Amino acid sequence: MNGARSLVRTLVDAGVEVCFANPGTSEMHFVSALDEIAGMRGVLGLFEGVVTGAADGYARMTDRPAATLLHCGPGLANGLANLHNASRAGVPIVNVVGDHAIYHKRLDAPLETDIDALAGTVSGWVRRSYRPQDVGADAADAVAAAQGPPGQIATLILPANVSWEDGGVPGSVRTPRPAARVPDAQVAAAAAALTSGEPAVLMLGGMAQRERGLRAASRIAVATGAQVSTQTHPARLQRGVGLPAFDRLPYFVEDAVAHLADNRHMILAGTAAPVAFFAYPDLPGSPTPQNCAVHELGAPGQDIVEALEHLADRVAPDTAPLLQAPTTPGPRAGALTTGAIAELVAAHLPEDAIVVDEAITAGVALAAASVGAPRHDWLCVTGGAIGYGLPTAVGAAVACPGRPVINLQADGSALYTIQALWTQARENLDVTTVLLNNHSYAILEVEMNRVLARSPGDKSRDLLSLTDPDIDFVKIANGLGIAATRATTAEELAGALRFATAEPGPHLIEAAYS
Amino acid sequence: MNGARSLVRTLVDAGVEVCFANPGTSEMHFVSALDEIAGMRGVLGLFEGVVTGAADGYARMTDRPAATLLHCGPGLANGLANLHNASRAGVPIVNVVGDHAIYHKRLDAPLETDIDALAGTVSGWVRRSYRPQDVGADAADAVAAAQGPPGQIATLILPANVSWEDGGVPGSVRTPRPAARVPDAQVAAAAAALTSGEPAVLMLGGMAQRERGLRAASRIAVATGAQVSTQTHPARLQRGVGLPAFDRLPYFVEDAVAHLADNRHMILAGTAAPVAFFAYPDLPGSPTPQNCAVHELGAPGQDIVEALEHLADRVAPDTAPLLQAPTTPGPRAGALTTGAIAELVAAHLPEDAIVVDEAITAGVALAAASVGAPRHDWLCVTGGAIGYGLPTAVGAAVACPGRPVINLQADGSALYTIQALWTQARENLDVTTVLLNNHSYAILEVEMNRVLARSPGDKSRDLLSLTDPDIDFVKIANGLGIAATRATTAEELAGALRFATAEPGPHLIEAAYS
Repeated sequence: MNGARSLVRTLVDAGVEVCFANPGTSEMHFVSALDEIAGMRGVLGLFEGVVTGAADGYARMTDRPAATLLHCGPGLANGLANLHNASRAGVPIVNVVGDHAIYHKRLDAPLETDIDALAGTVSGWVRRSYRPQDVGADAADAVAAAQGPPGQIATLILPANVSWEDGGVPGSVRTPRPAARVPDAQVAAAAAALTSGEPAVLMLGGMAQRERGLRAASRIAVATGAQVSTQTHPARLQRGVGLPAFDRLPYFVEDAVAHLADNRHMILAGTAAPVAFFAYPDLPGSPTPQNCAVHELGAPGQDIVEALEHLADRVAPDTAPLLQAPTTPGPRAGALTTGAIAELVAAHLPEDAIVVDEAITAGVALAAASVGAPRHDWLCVTGGAIGYGLPTAVGAAVACPGRPVINLQADGSALYTIQALWTQARENLDVTTVLLNNHSYAILEVEMNRVLARSPGDKSRDLLSLTDPDIDFVKIANGLGIAATRATTAEELAGALRFATAEPGPHLIEAAYS
Repeated sequence: MNGARSLVRTLVDAGVEVCFANPGTSEMHFVSALDEIAGMRGVLGLFEGVVTGAADGYARMTDRPAATLLHCGPGLANGLANLHNASRAGVPIVNVVGDHAIYHKRLDAPLETDIDALAGTVSGWVRRSYRPQDVGADAADAVAAAQGPPGQIATLILPANVSWEDGGVPGSVRTPRPAARVPDAQVAAAAAALTSGEPAVLMLGGMAQRERGLRAASRIAVATGAQVSTQTHPARLQRGVGLPAFDRLPYFVEDAVAHLADNRHMILAGTAAPVAFFAYPDLPGSPTPQNCAVHELGAPGQDIVEALEHLADRVAPDTAPLLQAPTTPGPRAGALTTGAIAELVAAHLPEDAIVVDEAITAGVALAAASVGAPRHDWLCVTGGAIGYGLPTAVGAAVACPGRPVINLQADGSALYTIQALWTQARENLDVTTVLLNNHSYAILEVEMNRVLARSPGDKSRDLLSLTDPDIDFVKIANGLGIAATRATTAEELAGALRFATAEPGPHLIEAAYS
């Protein structure tokens, strides 16, 4: 058994069932091992950002790692932006990067790169296998490291000769470590703050944004009057009818300041204290009020959901959570606006959908309109690296074949990883991409106004607009094998959403608006 | 004057006239400075690999740096693959990367990344400006560092507050340093090897692959009988009618071994000793014969062209170079094959064209057929990071507005940076993309046979083929604003090439073959 086969064998034994891949010459033995060893699905991405974003989406929906397969330093580099998002999402990924044969490194061949330096910027664990007999054990360590808790990216660098040489031994698979119990003293401290009579806010993050955490938080809020806020960009937020609904922390720091104003206590449940996404002249870096005491209920790797339930049992023993009732958006007609798109998407959201939100400027309206839609998961870009939406939709759909995926996708960010559409077609994934085409990097026009207090001049406008020529996403999608249509009115969008959500398989709807 | 303006002012004063950009919020003041300060052309790329590949192509054709403008760590990450190629090409680039405000770094905001680690993998020079009054001097240092010689990537990290705060002072521009003269002793040693009576090969690289170097090398070859070889993947090779023509070192190491066999002396003129692109089981890492003495005529940063001329004056004082005569490819008809495409491209190559070659498996045939075509420059992927072709064509066309650019582009590698087509349309660049669509990562099918001595099985074939669904590059190009046509016969390709090369502006021709 060569090193590559011992790697695939170990990954399969450890429950890693999917490999998102964009291989090159140095990874041919890994690719070939997929023919030899049953149990690993290979999914091809035509660009490495597709591969890593898909692994992120898969992990968010399964809480288990997929493997990636990337080619040398440049292949890893192309995948780094979405690994950055995955790292900020705290998800597990086993990131396999092929490299030159060990004895070839010193020759400084054209592809020679400092893979360790690149991997270190996004990985919690990095190792290079040096002998085929080590690969299995290294792979088992990689899976364990990826699973944490907390989840992280474990990068295993696999030299070509270690991959092809004989002597591989499958690694011993370990049972994933459970999250550590939060000490009672931390729960008691949070309870004291919440029952102090002073205004308090409970900040939810990570797993606290799933059903159990949300229900506990709602009980706490009802019983104590505390404010509850979810993250600005949750990795995965469960919401919709029958679940508690909380406001997300606003994106702009001045809005976040207003949102949190007057609180004297902040309880962190699975998230760090909030900070401004960017610095702005004359605005604070943190929206936390000056005289607000910050209490950490649980640290990364601790069981924050159990802690929230213990906290609820302590401060709200007989209180039921407040659950979202269904809302029915009214009919919309005429021109497409952000508001019309938001209500139409909400009205057509299928039961148990997975929403991948890279809508950027339209995101807030889309989330607001769908609060009373059928129950769904809502996934956001956690690390600010755009180009996450289309690939993450791939991974979510591979993870959950029975659930429809709705990707709310801005035009500018779509173009960073547009190749993901082909993988959606290749794998016949049930993804509907609602492509929100406002023909600009609209967020940057807003930001330029914010940081300079003025509108762009001629030259800078050219760097912020996506016109001249306009981009035709219907043609691009068709070119990548995806059925697509354009909607320019509310009636057309309603019809397109009805059709796309009724028919399985991938669709793209270009919603042209301004 | 804020920091951003002092940066743009200094760059313009130093002759940096083009900025390839994909900005974000932290770069808004740089973008705005383009409105304020005349002399800098901003060219938008819709993905950072387009930006950096364009800067590479621009530098190859002008021998001067363009600036890039990238957004934080993920923006730099997306541009790294083509910066890797540029670094291997030895070209100058002033790589500007925006970052958070200095005082915002410690808050670990979502986009926080180790930019220094990323930049260090491709840059010869990295600096972060800490005060607005330093930015001008830092920018002048960056330009000087980029210009070398040898050319390299100089990364200047620009924190947002340093960009927006007042106090900027334009930096003092310095005259570029000329290349150092090669010591006479090195020229004499090379002359002794060449006139030793033992077989010798002269390996040309870098600037030695331009007209002056080629003419000197040809004189040496004619007078001494030495073999001359250019690099496998030259950054820029001048060739065609009226120039000396030499074989390129073959890509596969066993072919390179045969190519160099029996030589007892190797003279390195602007290149390192050759190495195998990848390691393969049971094949050598270097094609240099065992008993061959290696002589370095000039080191990086030395004037290798002058050294070659001195060498020619010494060993071939009265010898004229051997110059390529025109060849006329015969007419082709019927089905498209690699050979037919190669001869048709050669037959339609315009005078003074710039050929950007990312044809991968078809590259050798294309180069062979065009050896007697009108004079042209031939650009190759120097670092093995695919996705270089379309962006490099952008940069070459911006650099040389009077010259037609022909991009010979394989299908698989095209998809890494397909967004470059939009910039070609936006800037109305005279680029004809010949998209060689064989519906596969054909090189990987070859490589799998080489490293495993077998063909792919079902699962691995899925990871190497680009079918199911087929990719329609005509539709994708149309979607990105480019006129496009498909050719499936020699007659159709001839007609499409005639039309595209006669009409200015961008075109894409999908040549479907197998």
